[in-house]
Amino acid sequence: MIAVLRIGHRIDRDKRVTTHVALVARAFGADKIFITTKDEKIKKNIQSVCSRFGGDFQVETGIDHKKIIKSWQGSIVHLTMYGMELDEAVDHLDTGRDLLIIVGAEKVPRYFYEVANLNVSVGNQPHSEVAALALFLDRYTKAAWQRKDFNGNIQIVPCVKGKTVLSKGKT
Amino acid sequence: MIAVLRIGHRIDRDKRVTTHVALVARAFGADKIFITTKDEKIKKNIQSVCSRFGGDFQVETGIDHKKIIKSWQGSIVHLTMYGMELDEAVDHLDTGRDLLIIVGAEKVPRYFYEVANLNVSVGNQPHSEVAALALFLDRYTKAAWQRKDFNGNIQIVPCVKGKTVLSKGKT
Repeated sequence: MIAVLRIGHRIDRDKRVTTHVALVARAFGADKIFITTKDEKIKKNIQSVCSRFGGDFQVETGIDHKKIIKSWQGSIVHLTMYGMELDEAVDHLDTGRDLLIIVGAEKVPRYFYEVANLNVSVGNQPHSEVAALALFLDRYTKAAWQRKDFNGNIQIVPCVKGKTVLSKGKT
Repeated sequence: MIAVLRIGHRIDRDKRVTTHVALVARAFGADKIFITTKDEKIKKNIQSVCSRFGGDFQVETGIDHKKIIKSWQGSIVHLTMYGMELDEAVDHLDTGRDLLIIVGAEKVPRYFYEVANLNVSVGNQPHSEVAALALFLDRYTKAAWQRKDFNGNIQIVPCVKGKTVLSKGKT
């Protein structure tokens, strides 16, 4: 089980970026996202993607992050530009254990740096939690996303020009 | 020279995601971003990151995309979930040539699919142009971002807990 914990989501300001975080979590191999702020709209959007494109990715919003963290039976990492280098960090993690990946929005309280077993940086430059999560999952899963079949009602077939879409029925 | 062409940017709706696209372009090895819509604020934000964290990444906004594309002396790729698989696409590209990477916002007009030498998919699931750009640059540059020194006034030193920041002077 790989879960993402998105903290500090502000409904108006972050709706697009948090949607990207959730879709990246799903596409690159996480099983679930917890979003601390209650946000039914984002939950519906992600569930709509899942029902069309497949997989059983789960979304929970309005959760108590301390409860999730305290009861977590597995490793906890926090993605931050200040953390340990990605490749080194991944070598430290036991992929046989469950993993909770904390992804912040703006300023992240010290608490999250402390509760994480590892603070992990995807480069030490400012960029994006969306990119950081994608690269982290890519390295952690050894690019398993490239081979995953979501078995959805809609399937996209790679093609050089235009769009090739297979549809299993009413979507 | 690697440049990113961000199309369809809507100032209010996309400001955060386009900022992430630009920061990812810089952090993962592009030299420049063109943003079709005029947006002085985003330009200032990115330039402020460059002046603090280093490098000579360039930002141009309010450009004529057709002019850029017509005069481009090099390869052109367009990132889309409908395109050719990432690894296969990267094998097709001559890294000795300049590269223009087109990154869309919402619906992308057919024109961009047509002018691209390659349409490239980073997975065939819906996720994020921010993640797609990061993964594309990671593979295309063979993860050169992990070794790049931006030589900025601010330098972050990887560390397991907390923050270690080196500052060359007034920032």
